[in-house]
Parts: sequence; C-alpha cells; structure tokens
Amino acid sequence: MSDDLKRRILGRVAEDLAAIESALGENLGAHLEIVSDVAGHILFSGGKRLRPLLMVLASRLCGYTGGREIFFSTVFEYLHVATLLHDDLVDGAELRRGRPAAHSVWSGPIAVLTGDFLLARSLTIASRTEDPEVIRVIASITENMSQGEIHQLTQKRNLNLTESEYLEIIRRKTAVLLQGSCRVGALIAGADASAVAALTDYGYHLGLAFQMADDLLDYTADTAVLGKSVGADLREGKLTLPVIHALAAAQPDDRTRMERMIQQTEFSTTDFEMLVGLLNRYGSIAYTRDRAAAHVQTAKERLAGFADSEEKAVMADIADYALSRKS
Amino acid sequence: MSDDLKRRILGRVAEDLAAIESALGENLGAHLEIVSDVAGHILFSGGKRLRPLLMVLASRLCGYTGGREIFFSTVFEYLHVATLLHDDLVDGAELRRGRPAAHSVWSGPIAVLTGDFLLARSLTIASRTEDPEVIRVIASITENMSQGEIHQLTQKRNLNLTESEYLEIIRRKTAVLLQGSCRVGALIAGADASAVAALTDYGYHLGLAFQMADDLLDYTADTAVLGKSVGADLREGKLTLPVIHALAAAQPDDRTRMERMIQQTEFSTTDFEMLVGLLNRYGSIAYTRDRAAAHVQTAKERLAGFADSEEKAVMADIADYALSRKS
Repeated sequence: MSDDLKRRILGRVAEDLAAIESALGENLGAHLEIVSDVAGHILFSGGKRLRPLLMVLASRLCGYTGGREIFFSTVFEYLHVATLLHDDLVDGAELRRGRPAAHSVWSGPIAVLTGDFLLARSLTIASRTEDPEVIRVIASITENMSQGEIHQLTQKRNLNLTESEYLEIIRRKTAVLLQGSCRVGALIAGADASAVAALTDYGYHLGLAFQMADDLLDYTADTAVLGKSVGADLREGKLTLPVIHALAAAQPDDRTRMERMIQQTEFSTTDFEMLVGLLNRYGSIAYTRDRAAAHVQTAKERLAGFADSEEKAVMADIADYALSRKS
Repeated sequence: MSDDLKRRILGRVAEDLAAIESALGENLGAHLEIVSDVAGHILFSGGKRLRPLLMVLASRLCGYTGGREIFFSTVFEYLHVATLLHDDLVDGAELRRGRPAAHSVWSGPIAVLTGDFLLARSLTIASRTEDPEVIRVIASITENMSQGEIHQLTQKRNLNLTESEYLEIIRRKTAVLLQGSCRVGALIAGADASAVAALTDYGYHLGLAFQMADDLLDYTADTAVLGKSVGADLREGKLTLPVIHALAAAQPDDRTRMERMIQQTEFSTTDFEMLVGLLNRYGSIAYTRDRAAAHVQTAKERLAGFADSEEKAVMADIADYALSRKS
C-alpha cells in the first residue's frame, strides 16, 4: 500500500521534482566552495523535497500561472535544510539519511554558519516575490521553528511532559513549515482568503501527522530503511507521543522501567525491545497512529472546496503517505 | 580626545539610544522565557547600539518623518546580536563585554537556536517596512556575514593570508551590516539614488575602519577596558591586518618567531609582548591605523553632499570615534 502510494505520487510529480532538484543547485549562490560542499552534502542526500513540492502543488491548485513556482519553492527546502543542519548539531545526531551529519564531517561551527547562510538564502529568494505577506510567513516560520527546538530541548527527559505540550512543540518545529509552504503557494497565486485558509490548514494538519509518523518510525522502523538509528529520540531524551501516552497509561512497575530507560543515554537492544513491547501493550503505538490518522483526515477534508484536479489528488495522496511511509 | 568625542556623540543621541533600548526589549516577542533570558543576556550587556543608531541617523539625514525609525532600527541590533551568539560559539570565545558568553552560561545548542530566533525576529520586523528592497538588503547582510565568518574560519593560522583576502573577510563579516544599516535608513526615507549610494558608501567605509580598529585593539587595549582578553584573535588563529603586515615585512628570524606563536593556541604574556614589540618595530600598528584612518576619511567625505545638520555632524563624529575608541 505504502509503496504503491509512493509510486503513484512520484509518477505524477516526477517532472516537478526534477525541476526542484535543478533549481536547488542553481539558486544556492554560495561564494565559497566549502559552503557549496556543506550545503550540498545535506541538500543532495535524498531528501523528499516535500516542502517545495507542497508549495508548487498549492500554487497550481490555486491557478498560479506566473511561471516562478519552482524558483520560489526552493525557499522551503533551503529553510528545511538550514534547520536540519542546526538541529543535528543541537541533538548531537550522528547520521542523517544514512550519511554522517555535516557537523561531524566538517565541524560544528561550519554547520552553524552554513545553516545561517541557507536561512539567509531562503530569505533572498523569498524577497523576490515582492510580497510582504510572504516575507512575514517565512520570518514567522523561522521564529517558530527555533522556539520549538528550544522548547523541546528544555523538556528533555521531562517525565511529566503532556500531550498538549508535545503538540505545541511539534506544531512549531515541524507543522509551521509545511503550513507555510502551502500558504505561500496560495499567496503567490493570489488566491482568495478562504482558499489561503484551507491550504494553510491542510499544511498544518499534514505537518502534525507527518511529525507524529516520524516519531512512530523511531520505534517501529528498521535502522537501515530509516537512514538513522531507531531509538534515537529516546537516546537523546526526546519524549514523543508514544512514550508520553505509555507513561500515563502504564502500571507503576512498567512506568518505573520506562522511567529508568528515559534517564539513560545508552541502552541495549533488549531494553529497547522491552520498551517497544510496552508501547504496544499499552496501545500507545496505536493511539499515536490514530491521532496522526485524524490529522491526515482533517488535512484531506480541507481540500474538499477545491475542484478536482491532478494537484488535489496528489495532495490527498501525500496526506495518506505521511502516515503510511516507512522512512 | 576619544573621551570628549564619545561624550559629544552621546550628548546628541542620548534620547535615541534610550528609545532604541526600550524598543529592543519591547519588540523581542519571544514565547519562551529562556529565549528572552538568553537574548537579553547578550542584548542588554552594554552594547553600543551603533547599528540601529546609524539607521536612525541615516533615515533622518534623508528627511524621514514616518515615525517608525526606532522600531525598524531594532532589526540591526537583533541581527548583530544573532551573529555574536553564533560567532562566540564558533570562536569558542569565553567572554563578551566582560561577561561569560551565552554558550558557556547556557549551552551551545541554546546559543545556536536563540541566534536563529533573533535572525528570524529581525526579518519579521524588516517585513513591516513592506519594502522588498529592504528585505533584500537584510537577506544579503546575513548571506555575507555567514560566508565572511566561514571564510575567516577556513583561513585560520594561514600564514600566507593576504591583505586583500583580509579585506574581503572583514567586508563581509562586519562592513555589510553597518553599510546595510545606513542603506536601509536612506531607503525607508525614500531618498534618491545618489543619497542612498552615498550613505551606503559611508557605512561601508565606516565598517572597514571599525573592524580594523577592533583588530588593533586586540593588540593595544587593556583586557579590563576591552571586556574580552587581549590577544584573543591570535589565540584563535585569526590573522588580522597588523600581523599580516608584520609577517610580510619581517626579517626571516622575526618572521620565524611570529610563525611559531601563530601556530600555538596558548602563549605567555612575555611572548605576547614580544609580538606587540615586533608589530610596532615593523610599523604594522601604524600601517593598520593609517589604513583605518583612510577609510574614516572616505566615510566622512561621502557625507559632503548632505546639507549640514545635527545628524550629519554626529555621523562624522562616529566615523572619527570608530578609530579613536578604546573599547
């Protein structure tokens, strides 16, 4: 199912993805070779290009014919990759998409500064829209993402993290960017307020579903398929919805076992399997999947007002894929 | 002389500085207390507010009466402080204005993310100008600054660094921000192209003079007055104009002594005094001061086309102060 869906999406957007891929190389505009190298290391490592693709699809769904959607869409990949560079450093992550993280190939400082460059680059391209509302959206995305990351950092290993606080964190750190991609697509098309609002909502719910699915994969995927270590979130002390749910639902002795694992930065495969067993036993995997599925559903419902089109069909498929994907 | 000049400048801009100070607190808009704390730690530690002040003065010199110059000027302090947070981390600097650097009080990750927040915040405020040209200037500043820092990083302890490469580095890492402050001041005032160009040049030359003076202070100031350790540049492997000049001018045995020091990350006070002795003997301190003075002169000349005014007088004084300051 997931693979079929992926093939169907890719079959429909192959041309756009190829165009986005070229544009990402062409618009980088770095003056120093090392900046191109570091940015290229993370930019061209098999990213899904989901964010630029969403902007392109949203703009077309709203009838945009200005011909600059591919160019503008690079904003969202540069922004995404900038935050990945900083987040991998912040998290001390070793792998990204199966390759060593930039901060370990080069250095922390180089990763910080290349991230800054990419943030600035996304802004330069955004300024070409000559639309202050677009600039405001881009600025607000970065304000939110940095604060979402800080919030997450301050809540590390906090055993009392609530579901609503978790939602607030993932809204800021993930959903605002997908939301912003869709919103900007509608804005550059000059869509009316209701279409802008519908696509903003679509992106928001898709973003929440996407992050919840990501958090699930950290407990359910294969390391080889995922391109990073399974269990990494817990090792970093990041409590995500499956664990938050299980902690609240668990019997005292099971809760104690979980708490002990959360305090550690290293644990054995056996320990990890024990934890995954508990997440299943307390219905926490299923609960998280259900919450994500509800957001997928809401996202798709917000497309209802648009006439049927190729773009609409792909955007609905992408919402389904957010949850069914394996990496 | 320097103290008189400082008093004269401060006497004329005291009200603006107080207004900028308040605006920096009011417009921060952080959602998390820790972000306010970290940003506040570096924002309110006795900065000169030179960059916002330049924007305010430039806007008035061009007849701006829109009443939002103080608000817009915060862009340039937020941007400045964002880069300080990242640069102190990149350089491993321990002190900033006599206080422990944010990355050592909190952590590297917190410093990175708060810097990102401040970058985004400056952009949000810039977007309120509704002027795409202003946005382009802001974006280009950050692109340049990050690349200037990376360039400097890649040239660490490079004994063959040339004066022209040094100029390229300080142009990007320092001059573009002062240049941008002045340019945006003129732009929001709707100044004509020649006034915009004159103030852009003023800011550029002021920026170069300012950085050269900074690089001189690292060899000539008192640690207590400077608020950070004298000799820090060399300890970090940063070759600045005095050393670049001396390396080129020195006799072989003196060059060897200097090279040996540059390779080290620690050196004694005696070693450092020996180096300062060489910088004086080879005229490298004087040479750097002369180059800075030439830029101060050019900066002041670019004010000539403007009618005499309080703003013009202060901007000329600021140019002089860039070189005569003691910290």
